[in-house]
Amino acid sequence: MFQKLLAEGLGTAFLLIGVVGSGIMGEMLAGGNVAIALLANAITTGCILYVIITTLGPISGAHFNPAVTAYFTLRGEMKASEAAAYIPIQIAGGIVGVWLTHAMFDLQILQTSTTARTGGPQWISEVMATFGLLFVIVGGLRSRPDAVPTLVALYITGAYWFTSSTSFANPAVTIARGFSDTFAGINPSHIAMFVVAQAIGMTVALIVLPKLFEPRSET
Amino acid sequence: MFQKLLAEGLGTAFLLIGVVGSGIMGEMLAGGNVAIALLANAITTGCILYVIITTLGPISGAHFNPAVTAYFTLRGEMKASEAAAYIPIQIAGGIVGVWLTHAMFDLQILQTSTTARTGGPQWISEVMATFGLLFVIVGGLRSRPDAVPTLVALYITGAYWFTSSTSFANPAVTIARGFSDTFAGINPSHIAMFVVAQAIGMTVALIVLPKLFEPRSET
Amino acid sequence: MFQKLLAEGLGTAFLLIGVVGSGIMGEMLAGGNVAIALLANAITTGCILYVIITTLGPISGAHFNPAVTAYFTLRGEMKASEAAAYIPIQIAGGIVGVWLTHAMFDLQILQTSTTARTGGPQWISEVMATFGLLFVIVGGLRSRPDAVPTLVALYITGAYWFTSSTSFANPAVTIARGFSDTFAGINPSHIAMFVVAQAIGMTVALIVLPKLFEPRSET
Amino acid sequence: MFQKLLAEGLGTAFLLIGVVGSGIMGEMLAGGNVAIALLANAITTGCILYVIITTLGPISGAHFNPAVTAYFTLRGEMKASEAAAYIPIQIAGGIVGVWLTHAMFDLQILQTSTTARTGGPQWISEVMATFGLLFVIVGGLRSRPDAVPTLVALYITGAYWFTSSTSFANPAVTIARGFSDTFAGINPSHIAMFVVAQAIGMTVALIVLPKLFEPRSET
Repeated sequence: MFQKLLAEGLGTAFLLIGVVGSGIMGEMLAGGNVAIALLANAITTGCILYVIITTLGPISGAHFNPAVTAYFTLRGEMKASEAAAYIPIQIAGGIVGVWLTHAMFDLQILQTSTTARTGGPQWISEVMATFGLLFVIVGGLRSRPDAVPTLVALYITGAYWFTSSTSFANPAVTIARGFSDTFAGINPSHIAMFVVAQAIGMTVALIVLPKLFEPRSET
Repeated sequence: MFQKLLAEGLGTAFLLIGVVGSGIMGEMLAGGNVAIALLANAITTGCILYVIITTLGPISGAHFNPAVTAYFTLRGEMKASEAAAYIPIQIAGGIVGVWLTHAMFDLQILQTSTTARTGGPQWISEVMATFGLLFVIVGGLRSRPDAVPTLVALYITGAYWFTSSTSFANPAVTIARGFSDTFAGINPSHIAMFVVAQAIGMTVALIVLPKLFEPRSET
Repeated sequence: MFQKLLAEGLGTAFLLIGVVGSGIMGEMLAGGNVAIALLANAITTGCILYVIITTLGPISGAHFNPAVTAYFTLRGEMKASEAAAYIPIQIAGGIVGVWLTHAMFDLQILQTSTTARTGGPQWISEVMATFGLLFVIVGGLRSRPDAVPTLVALYITGAYWFTSSTSFANPAVTIARGFSDTFAGINPSHIAMFVVAQAIGMTVALIVLPKLFEPRSET
Repeated sequence: MFQKLLAEGLGTAFLLIGVVGSGIMGEMLAGGNVAIALLANAITTGCILYVIITTLGPISGAHFNPAVTAYFTLRGEMKASEAAAYIPIQIAGGIVGVWLTHAMFDLQILQTSTTARTGGPQWISEVMATFGLLFVIVGGLRSRPDAVPTLVALYITGAYWFTSSTSFANPAVTIARGFSDTFAGINPSHIAMFVVAQAIGMTVALIVLPKLFEPRSET
């Protein structure tokens, strides 16, 4: 259990370093060309996701995401007691990752984001993004488990671009990004609705994915 | 059969979300630098193709494309009755995907594209693009079936750039993109000729690919 | 043999479509930002290389390059008579690919490049690029044959950027690019020295690679 | 041993050609848009890392990095005498690679960088970057050894963006980059502290990674 929690904490910290750090670097260098900053942000996030899921998957399952942990728990594939330990570690790891990133970029450690991310279209985006993430994980585990790191990495790299919210799709990441007033930040007062939307996306996944991916007796 | 149709509908919806959503985001952020918008568009489409083919391939074969369904039917590898169910679901799934994308980006749901995509060079492009797509699928199934998701993803990412039409290569995608007056749209009056060109590309594939990929008795 | 030659001709045509087409599209859209045009050019070339090597490798070996064919012939792994058939087909396929690309982009079919690519630094680049390409192929065949398509694709994507010539590394490609007065073109009077440099790179590979990759009795 | 040292020297030379060459090309073409230059630099470095680790891994282990060699030596998985031969070859290979790059780009061969890379945030970045690199290698060797080339390539591509130092993470690379007054250079007087930071990152890895990745008797 110690190794599992270490893996979830360290992995989520790395994820946030990737997301927030590349956002800072991208914004700094792109000179107002936000498209290039977002491209760097999306590619970097895909890279780090591949890396942490491949290396830590065999240890903790490589969730780094309370929506994923909740999904497996509600499907009965994970004990509730274990989930209850995973989720706070994911959130704490994410916040530590944000702080380490600030240290690397010579920014004040403690920050609060002022970036507005709110409104129906962004909430619909988070429902879609979270459903899609679970779709990719559950479908990948069924069809080709060794491809899951690539699937998640490419899905999120793409989802930065095809949703108006840039696809947070992860409550721990959402909370941690509230602590950074940089490119990837989110105003803390907008976090709750993002998490609600992510929970709805997870609920849709709980309903739809078994119909899609579970073996059926008749054809 | 229910799972197969759900897979084809959902997969094609995801594909259109990827194509149209990243087009909107790219155009919005790139500030007139169309090359960066197209790069994001191409990379995102490759990402989503890898994801939907890997996860849904074992369920429905992951066509998402009437040209692919028609090719396998005409080669006798798929029943005509099944093809007749696949194709309308692909088209409907694509259109629903476009509408969901508009909802995510706070745009009017119902739109009609005004983007002209017509003329001989673009039609030649669609013939080539569709032939190439089938070449990649049929060749991949023969040489390395597990690489098919990567093959299709990389082929289309590249084909955005090496054809003047940006490689629609898919009648369902072409029809659905008629419903979006955004970066990826196509004026509905130009759809028919694109589909004709795609049908020609498929016909060339029916003639050439068996000569290239089928085992021959003499060397 | 018919299938092998069809594969070499078709594959080299696709390669040139990828290289020249993406160069045209990149230059057209990038509005003077040559870095983005080259990035699209490099990524597209990598995509098409992965695709043609994976699908056609089991048929013809997927050379598409007289320097590769010459290397294997001189190493005694291929019959000279076969090489003598491969090389003209590679060159012809490449030229046809360039012409098809011009048709797709509404350009005059017959063109002669006026782009100067000459001088010592570019010749050194071609020596290096060709040596590196053979290093990657021979090393990959020894360590992990299934990775060869990825190895060649990534090597060339990178080599666009780390050589001053953008790494032609292929006499058939070099000759064919003489027929296009677009982004990827090369003034025909500069082709001969590029081919000489590529031959030198191949010769260095013939000397160095066996020392590096062949099993040795003592350690 | 001869093959091992040839592999380490040649591989590190290739690595520096990739890093320094793409930096020069990127800066030259990007016209002041540093984000695009860095994107090309990061992608090229990832490409070349995949290539040299895949091809040379079976020969020398594909370290190309004194921090990696030191880690395995201090963990008792490599003989100190071998390490003592690897490290100077890595440094020499890197410097030769830089000189070859200058030759390819028509620059003066002998140069000294004037680019300042110093200060606490960059040193923290190098600690993190080196720890992360070893995390990825050690974790990958445990979970999926065949994925190590991809892991290192994607990790470094991402790390260019999420650290303020652009992740040198390698003393041989750091020293060699002191010899190039181009995009990727580092003022020689700032090299020592980078190497110290990298040594600290390696020390953290020696402490943390066994706790994370080694099998434990109790759960």
